[in-house]
Amino acid sequence: MGMRRGILFVLSAPSGAGKTTLSREAVERIAGLEASVSATTRAPRRGETNGVDYHFVTDEEFRRSMENNELVETARVFDAWYGTPRAPLERALLEGRDVLLDIDVNGARAIAQLYGSDVVRVFVIPPSFADLEARLRKRGTEEEAAVTRRLKQAREEYSAYPEYDYLIINSDQEVAVEKLRAVVEAERLKVSRLKQGFTPWT
Amino acid sequence: MGMRRGILFVLSAPSGAGKTTLSREAVERIAGLEASVSATTRAPRRGETNGVDYHFVTDEEFRRSMENNELVETARVFDAWYGTPRAPLERALLEGRDVLLDIDVNGARAIAQLYGSDVVRVFVIPPSFADLEARLRKRGTEEEAAVTRRLKQAREEYSAYPEYDYLIINSDQEVAVEKLRAVVEAERLKVSRLKQGFTPWT
Repeated sequence: MGMRRGILFVLSAPSGAGKTTLSREAVERIAGLEASVSATTRAPRRGETNGVDYHFVTDEEFRRSMENNELVETARVFDAWYGTPRAPLERALLEGRDVLLDIDVNGARAIAQLYGSDVVRVFVIPPSFADLEARLRKRGTEEEAAVTRRLKQAREEYSAYPEYDYLIINSDQEVAVEKLRAVVEAERLKVSRLKQGFTPWT
Repeated sequence: MGMRRGILFVLSAPSGAGKTTLSREAVERIAGLEASVSATTRAPRRGETNGVDYHFVTDEEFRRSMENNELVETARVFDAWYGTPRAPLERALLEGRDVLLDIDVNGARAIAQLYGSDVVRVFVIPPSFADLEARLRKRGTEEEAAVTRRLKQAREEYSAYPEYDYLIINSDQEVAVEKLRAVVEAERLKVSRLKQGFTPWT
């Protein structure tokens, strides 16, 4: 089963920091890193595949999973529920596979409490608040009120970064992926992660 | 002066693990990483430059430096003394520059005691004991007795790896440098290294 347990990399970011793109790129380009597939009650969007992008479930199914303690963290975003299924995570840890979780600050707290030293928390921020504001406005898809709300929320989320292990300032997507790669590779080399009784030399 | 203090990366390895080549390559290829220049009482070899490869000093000068507490660690190897000068290290830390120290297990202990969380310890081992034995014999420059002594010493040194933060298994020089790069880059992203009062966002 390998010389160490798997590592849960938790990626959080204030709204608008480019976290979703970054985690998708990371899983594609960093060997041996898998994405956790969340359960959600929202409807599938065009191009999304059940079981790959999300596990699409009904409100009733989600509620039952929560009650049965099958989700290690949950979040309510607008009108939908999102949650991280427990079974595949714990299987990955046991099998020494590394998983990337793209979750919010509250979810990261829950995961850290549950999995302790198996968890590595990475916080991603845009280079400045002004930069974030420009990004949000450039999308042009949102009303002024929505932009203001998102900025306020981002400031609040931002203040959680001291709870994290690593801080990545995302001014360039390429560079940010390479930084995340360095974190993943370095964590894999940690002596503290070697299984008890591990002897590289015989 | 930057957003964090400098980091002292300490590289140790059992005799014959390829540490000297690895640390030379690392300093050449990892941006912003400098080598610490040791003081030594041994004679310069062909091609070595005073102040670049080593600070070449007399026994008397070395003894005086030790007495004046100007060396943070010292080692006796065969008939010569080696030591790490304190002043340039502490200047680097203050100025936020990162330094690589290529020192033995005892030196690493001394440095860790002095500089605590500013120190990151990396241990390098060949893929197996058999591999190390083959390497030492292939050099062909050493008597059987010397090879036996080095192997015994390597086993002893090897047993210190649990004191280190990271373990790099050096089966390929290129790969080993990239692993060391990951460690350096990841450590630079650690939230715990950010200076108090640091605010990336304004």
